[in-house]
Amino acid sequence: MAGSKYAYVRNFELPDPLLPGTFLVFRLDGHSFHRFSTEHQFTKPNDVQALMLMDHAARDVMEEYKDIVLAFGESDEYSFLLRKSTSLYNRRESKICSTLTSFFTSCYVFHWKEYFPDSPLLYPPSFDGRIVVYPSSREVRDYFSWRQADTHINNLYNTIFWALVQQGGKTTTDAHAALRGTVSSQKHEMLFKSFGVNYNEIDARFRKGSILVRDIEDVSHKPLKWKKNKAKTKINLLHCDIIKDEFWDARPHLLE
Amino acid sequence: MAGSKYAYVRNFELPDPLLPGTFLVFRLDGHSFHRFSTEHQFTKPNDVQALMLMDHAARDVMEEYKDIVLAFGESDEYSFLLRKSTSLYNRRESKICSTLTSFFTSCYVFHWKEYFPDSPLLYPPSFDGRIVVYPSSREVRDYFSWRQADTHINNLYNTIFWALVQQGGKTTTDAHAALRGTVSSQKHEMLFKSFGVNYNEIDARFRKGSILVRDIEDVSHKPLKWKKNKAKTKINLLHCDIIKDEFWDARPHLLE
Amino acid sequence: MAGSKYAYVRNFELPDPLLPGTFLVFRLDGHSFHRFSTEHQFTKPNDVQALMLMDHAARDVMEEYKDIVLAFGESDEYSFLLRKSTSLYNRRESKICSTLTSFFTSCYVFHWKEYFPDSPLLYPPSFDGRIVVYPSSREVRDYFSWRQADTHINNLYNTIFWALVQQGGKTTTDAHAALRGTVSSQKHEMLFKSFGVNYNEIDARFRKGSILVRDIEDVSHKPLKWKKNKAKTKINLLHCDIIKDEFWDARPHLLE
Amino acid sequence: MAGSKYAYVRNFELPDPLLPGTFLVFRLDGHSFHRFSTEHQFTKPNDVQALMLMDHAARDVMEEYKDIVLAFGESDEYSFLLRKSTSLYNRRESKICSTLTSFFTSCYVFHWKEYFPDSPLLYPPSFDGRIVVYPSSREVRDYFSWRQADTHINNLYNTIFWALVQQGGKTTTDAHAALRGTVSSQKHEMLFKSFGVNYNEIDARFRKGSILVRDIEDVSHKPLKWKKNKAKTKINLLHCDIIKDEFWDARPHLLE
Repeated sequence: MAGSKYAYVRNFELPDPLLPGTFLVFRLDGHSFHRFSTEHQFTKPNDVQALMLMDHAARDVMEEYKDIVLAFGESDEYSFLLRKSTSLYNRRESKICSTLTSFFTSCYVFHWKEYFPDSPLLYPPSFDGRIVVYPSSREVRDYFSWRQADTHINNLYNTIFWALVQQGGKTTTDAHAALRGTVSSQKHEMLFKSFGVNYNEIDARFRKGSILVRDIEDVSHKPLKWKKNKAKTKINLLHCDIIKDEFWDARPHLLE
Repeated sequence: MAGSKYAYVRNFELPDPLLPGTFLVFRLDGHSFHRFSTEHQFTKPNDVQALMLMDHAARDVMEEYKDIVLAFGESDEYSFLLRKSTSLYNRRESKICSTLTSFFTSCYVFHWKEYFPDSPLLYPPSFDGRIVVYPSSREVRDYFSWRQADTHINNLYNTIFWALVQQGGKTTTDAHAALRGTVSSQKHEMLFKSFGVNYNEIDARFRKGSILVRDIEDVSHKPLKWKKNKAKTKINLLHCDIIKDEFWDARPHLLE
Repeated sequence: MAGSKYAYVRNFELPDPLLPGTFLVFRLDGHSFHRFSTEHQFTKPNDVQALMLMDHAARDVMEEYKDIVLAFGESDEYSFLLRKSTSLYNRRESKICSTLTSFFTSCYVFHWKEYFPDSPLLYPPSFDGRIVVYPSSREVRDYFSWRQADTHINNLYNTIFWALVQQGGKTTTDAHAALRGTVSSQKHEMLFKSFGVNYNEIDARFRKGSILVRDIEDVSHKPLKWKKNKAKTKINLLHCDIIKDEFWDARPHLLE
Repeated sequence: MAGSKYAYVRNFELPDPLLPGTFLVFRLDGHSFHRFSTEHQFTKPNDVQALMLMDHAARDVMEEYKDIVLAFGESDEYSFLLRKSTSLYNRRESKICSTLTSFFTSCYVFHWKEYFPDSPLLYPPSFDGRIVVYPSSREVRDYFSWRQADTHINNLYNTIFWALVQQGGKTTTDAHAALRGTVSSQKHEMLFKSFGVNYNEIDARFRKGSILVRDIEDVSHKPLKWKKNKAKTKINLLHCDIIKDEFWDARPHLLE
């Protein structure tokens, strides 16, 4: 066959299997989204349309890849949990990572106009992805706690920061200066005293992030077995706490 | 800081640097493009609009990532050569692979309507990517020879196959049967005798694939040094032979 | 500093950390020990002196590396379990694997004359090592079950095989032929009927392999915490079953 | 087969092939040799018997592994160059690294008494090993230049340091202090003025390290082809410069 004298170059493609029997967390982040959000005039501190577009793309990914049982999104990042026993693409790292990043990106661009009908995309956005391997359910829970705690910290800061700028008339430099060294309770107080905002009454989407979870439509009340793939499942969007036990206790199938 | 008790989960993100001093080839492939091309009614054996869209996305990638000096595309795949000394993203494998795949995908969807104004995207397409490390210029040349030889083999087969179906009235099963065991010269002959087509006169884009090369606009006639990044460069689209020496001899900077 | 112009070559030493929070199993095997055992006239099917030398080297390794909590040996191989939280050599794969292999080898040669006072080493023996990462205690138990089941299978076969040769006067070819297709119960019966040997009365060392376990000298009856490293421990050599629960239930610290 | 229910644990043994078409450098270092050399009363600054034992073990490794074409040793470390096309153990990293470390260690202990007939080994010494991948001959040469430059720097320092201590009656603290901040030429001068020693007349073994090179016994004067493995080769021990071109120009087969 013509070309066969060159085919040896395939030997340089080395295997990259991920360890079996472990949870895989795939996380993607917007590439240069600071600029992207400015150019597309995203509302500050949170643009609900932009967040809903992220959720839409994430849901599409979960519809396509059944081994993803949970996803968590905030700002321009999204994390996806693949169940421990997944054999997606034989657990090849580059294949999984690049394909999921690609499909999410594609969905984001594809659905853009549904969320921004009056603001066309000015240039193609992109994301970077990575896979992290976790050996046990403890670490998986702590991973998602880490992301939701991060959401809280960032959102509290951004909420008071943009209030100072947009309503308080401060420059961004002064707003940062005003917040330097403040702890959580002080920020809550500033927000309430200066702007009459009770932080806990802000949209849960902003405070808690977006949780997409593959729930079981349990008609039989029998314990779920993923492997049989017979249980009917439905992807639900929530904005609830995932740090405490309640969320997980109600969904033992996520970490089995 | 809230959340710091969970931050240990970052320790599970292991480093993935690619070997320094080596050429990196990044290749992406369309995911389920057999179905995608059918649903979007791509012309067979080659849809020039679809190929031009691939070229457009690939060019965008090269405009954005200056360390890519060469790209080769055929059908729904594209290969990119990053120069040996690149320190893009500190040569982190997942970061490079996922970002390039994402950006290509984004450009593909973004520009779709320019190439298919009357055929809207029905669903979001995706690609998978991988990086292969080559230690020397010999292997890099053989890699691109391998892809171009593959282009030739596939295109010759597809050209006569679709002629038998579209003009010869054969079923696809019969067309495959008619070609079974035929060598290259026989296919040329069938094409000429039955359909009056001289294969060598077919559009070079189909026979040779697409080459995007970062050429130097050499006003000074001094030898180029990539590192100084001062040379003006321009990305040219070619459909020429890259197996023989001529292409490479004219562009020593590609493999330096 | 002289030499600094060459120091860049260190950049090619890539990191190789093993995933945190996982059990590490280090296994080594004798290199060409078929020839080695023949040249040094090891007794067949089992040379008790050779096995005791292996046990001695393995015990030395465990005395030196406190994070090894269990080891299992049979024939010319030994497996070592490092506890899940070990940070030995920052979990660098090559460092751990090469150092443990080296030290075991060194101890084997160093103690040779104690076990073979009349049979000097004819040439230097060597071993190869590898590390396998296991995410959970289930897999660790199954790993050791796998090795002990292997010991049983091999020893039963070898016992009857060498009886046929040494006492039965068969050639090795005929002995293999006689055993072809026989199941376990048939081998037991052949051994008993032809040679009056009750397999279950054979030395447990041969049937069960060697288990070296770091036991806790529990004076306080408080639960052990490895991390505090305060518990007095002692390495015991056993030849017992490690497939059933009993061994593990008595030693919860091994898999904590 | 008994045991087959556990055999799945083998799936956790992941592949670890090294990139084809690259030079492999295997380096090993003595583990805690500061203590080892003290306890075994090695002569300072250089113990010629200890160095000759290192050379002996390294030569044994080269006799056993024909794909090693060059080795360089200083103090308690040794580096080995495997030719670019080696397929030793299918280029599996752990297998090569652990086996070579093990065999070197074994040879070191095995030959100890030939070099230290009156000083028995007090305990088993060990080494750690690693493999570094180099894509081109330039980096291989720079690697060996780096090690030989290191030998020079260390030996010059140690020579004057121990002269100050042994002949000059200084404490080790004072000797270090006396050398702090001195450049190479000053050390040469101190050595000559205070102790009448011309550094360049010191044994080349100490100044240049040990080079073990697989030379071709070229009777035919035809160019060597490693692959044919027909050329007679001989391992020579040298203490010459390997930074300049001469050594390499005379042995083009090392880097082919």
